[in-house]
Amino acid sequence: MRAAMNPLVAALAPPPIPQAQGWAHAYDGSAGPLINLTQAAPGSAPHPDFLARLAEAAGSAEAARYGAIAGDTALREAYAADVAALYAAAIGPENVAITAGCNQAFAVAALLAARAGDAVLLPTPWYFNHQTTLAMLGVEAVPLPARAEDGFVPRVADAEALIDPRTRAIALVTPNNPTGAIYPPETIAAFADLARRRGIWLILDETYRDFLPEPRAPHGLFAAPGWGENVVQLYSFSKSYAAPGLRLGAMTAAPETIEAAVTILDNLQICPARAGQAPIAWAIPHLRRWREENRAEILARARAFAGVMARHPGWRIETIGVYFAYLRHPSRDESAAQIAERLARERGVLTLPGSYFGPGQEAFLRIAFANADPAEIAALDARLDGFG
Amino acid sequence: MRAAMNPLVAALAPPPIPQAQGWAHAYDGSAGPLINLTQAAPGSAPHPDFLARLAEAAGSAEAARYGAIAGDTALREAYAADVAALYAAAIGPENVAITAGCNQAFAVAALLAARAGDAVLLPTPWYFNHQTTLAMLGVEAVPLPARAEDGFVPRVADAEALIDPRTRAIALVTPNNPTGAIYPPETIAAFADLARRRGIWLILDETYRDFLPEPRAPHGLFAAPGWGENVVQLYSFSKSYAAPGLRLGAMTAAPETIEAAVTILDNLQICPARAGQAPIAWAIPHLRRWREENRAEILARARAFAGVMARHPGWRIETIGVYFAYLRHPSRDESAAQIAERLARERGVLTLPGSYFGPGQEAFLRIAFANADPAEIAALDARLDGFG
Repeated sequence: MRAAMNPLVAALAPPPIPQAQGWAHAYDGSAGPLINLTQAAPGSAPHPDFLARLAEAAGSAEAARYGAIAGDTALREAYAADVAALYAAAIGPENVAITAGCNQAFAVAALLAARAGDAVLLPTPWYFNHQTTLAMLGVEAVPLPARAEDGFVPRVADAEALIDPRTRAIALVTPNNPTGAIYPPETIAAFADLARRRGIWLILDETYRDFLPEPRAPHGLFAAPGWGENVVQLYSFSKSYAAPGLRLGAMTAAPETIEAAVTILDNLQICPARAGQAPIAWAIPHLRRWREENRAEILARARAFAGVMARHPGWRIETIGVYFAYLRHPSRDESAAQIAERLARERGVLTLPGSYFGPGQEAFLRIAFANADPAEIAALDARLDGFG
Repeated sequence: MRAAMNPLVAALAPPPIPQAQGWAHAYDGSAGPLINLTQAAPGSAPHPDFLARLAEAAGSAEAARYGAIAGDTALREAYAADVAALYAAAIGPENVAITAGCNQAFAVAALLAARAGDAVLLPTPWYFNHQTTLAMLGVEAVPLPARAEDGFVPRVADAEALIDPRTRAIALVTPNNPTGAIYPPETIAAFADLARRRGIWLILDETYRDFLPEPRAPHGLFAAPGWGENVVQLYSFSKSYAAPGLRLGAMTAAPETIEAAVTILDNLQICPARAGQAPIAWAIPHLRRWREENRAEILARARAFAGVMARHPGWRIETIGVYFAYLRHPSRDESAAQIAERLARERGVLTLPGSYFGPGQEAFLRIAFANADPAEIAALDARLDGFG
């Protein structure tokens, strides 16, 4: 008799990115090379000095060994110093655990906060892996609708109205995926206050933090006394150092929360992959200028993309911020997936439909402009002509 | 108000290896250098050609990119060919997902099989991370006592008597951690039959497979028609290639099970760390002789260890097989942890107490002899003199 699959896993939607790539394969190339606007992954190569250090580290017997569960001390120290400086807060290595990217950091945060039967509030549109991670753990992702008229920044009062005894956390992504929205510091502070008032967790995913328009603290939470009683913050080295293949990210939390995270991480991976850790510890202080250049380049792409879209009045940019824009498409009759598929097949422009990002998103497409080069963004202009 | 930790996570025991290392720190060195018999991690360096390939791969822009969720095709193909040859079975890349080591493979297998409230049978003594992984997911680890008089090979009839409607899987580790016991092929087949009869999963962790005394198939499961309806097999590249720092392991299962595993792996890590994948794909066919030499060396250490223990009649080797031996210690009054701590502090010999491996193990210590060098094994003789 065939064994049954865990029904929570059997019910998971397949990862959406490969599905969308299938639409691109159906494009015949007639309008020119495919313009891929789905990739939240860096399109450029890492800094050559960083690659040289990766080669050196990976070729050493040390990197072949197990490391500490929470990550190498040098990396925890370098990252803690980076966080301490940016947020002007007393953050040390005891506040940091290194993870296999920010997705694993979210899975660990979800396990820290909630068990099967509990609930976590996720603003919609949501990052699909947050919803699927909760779903596979039997934790309900409760949609907290963010509104287009608010620039897709969720309202604290809406969140408070959704909290019930099963609610263990609110998870925010800022700068947001998929909308690109940058939550104001006072909004983030108000969510932290809500979490404290109600004795639940605020999980704050800041994967795209290093691409904010200005290099200043995105919020002041870490400077508040007792912040660690309610806040778990997540980060990824993948985007900032153009190196998702290393699978390195980080969680920042109270030391006792990090200790609990370590018990989870031991089960999930024993330790982070070693080879990238020393090079990232080096890169944090040494590649500041390179990161600034990338920040400026991605901001220029945002402006270029907005300029192109301004010439296509059927479309509306609802939000454009860091890395992503969220577009209202011109069709009233087609679903977001139908529009995205047609745009890919007919015009060779690959985007993700809003429907991948939770309920109520049929009117929207997500555009990841950060990794489209300027020529591709310019070429988009002709591709959209007469499409509707 | 402070947010509450998920009680399942709060209740987890801390990872035991660091705790035992604390005992070693209390050793004053008076008997000579510490002899560490706790490490299931390779003590030797990887092959130099393999390190050179790791350096080359890690220094490339390609390894910095995201890869396929299930792992690079070249690695899935090379590993599938390895499994197909060893087990004389039709295994292809569609049967393989690459994971961050065997611990992650187990976590994925647990999620595939069971949700909170379900149960999984684990022979005791068990590998502690299997129990903690299930516990953090709210899945009950039901002890299936393996008996010293059976060489710690569990009985199928005992397992069958423990199956109830909540039971979703039986998880076996063979060669076993902590006992070193090698389960006979017919026992493994009988457990697979039981799983099929009862419509549950057999999760088979073969992390130590490449160190079996002889390079032949450990079981015939993959040759049985319909094996994938009940069997999920797990493996690690960490031990065989002396490279746990890469965090690479594998799951072998039916293609539809691999597809479901991919939805889980996408949530847990997006993709495996890239840098090690091409070098492992190369090493599988090219380092066969090196693996054979390691196998022979570890077998020689097993014989040397058995020879030493034969001169200490207060102790008894209950099982000695692959990588590990399971010892009955001479004390009737002390717990396993007390003996292990005293052996570390007084004699500079670090072992793990049986009590780390589940209920009913106070009489035993686990010895990881595979990574103690011959001089250390010889030195053990004097360290045990008069200890009791």
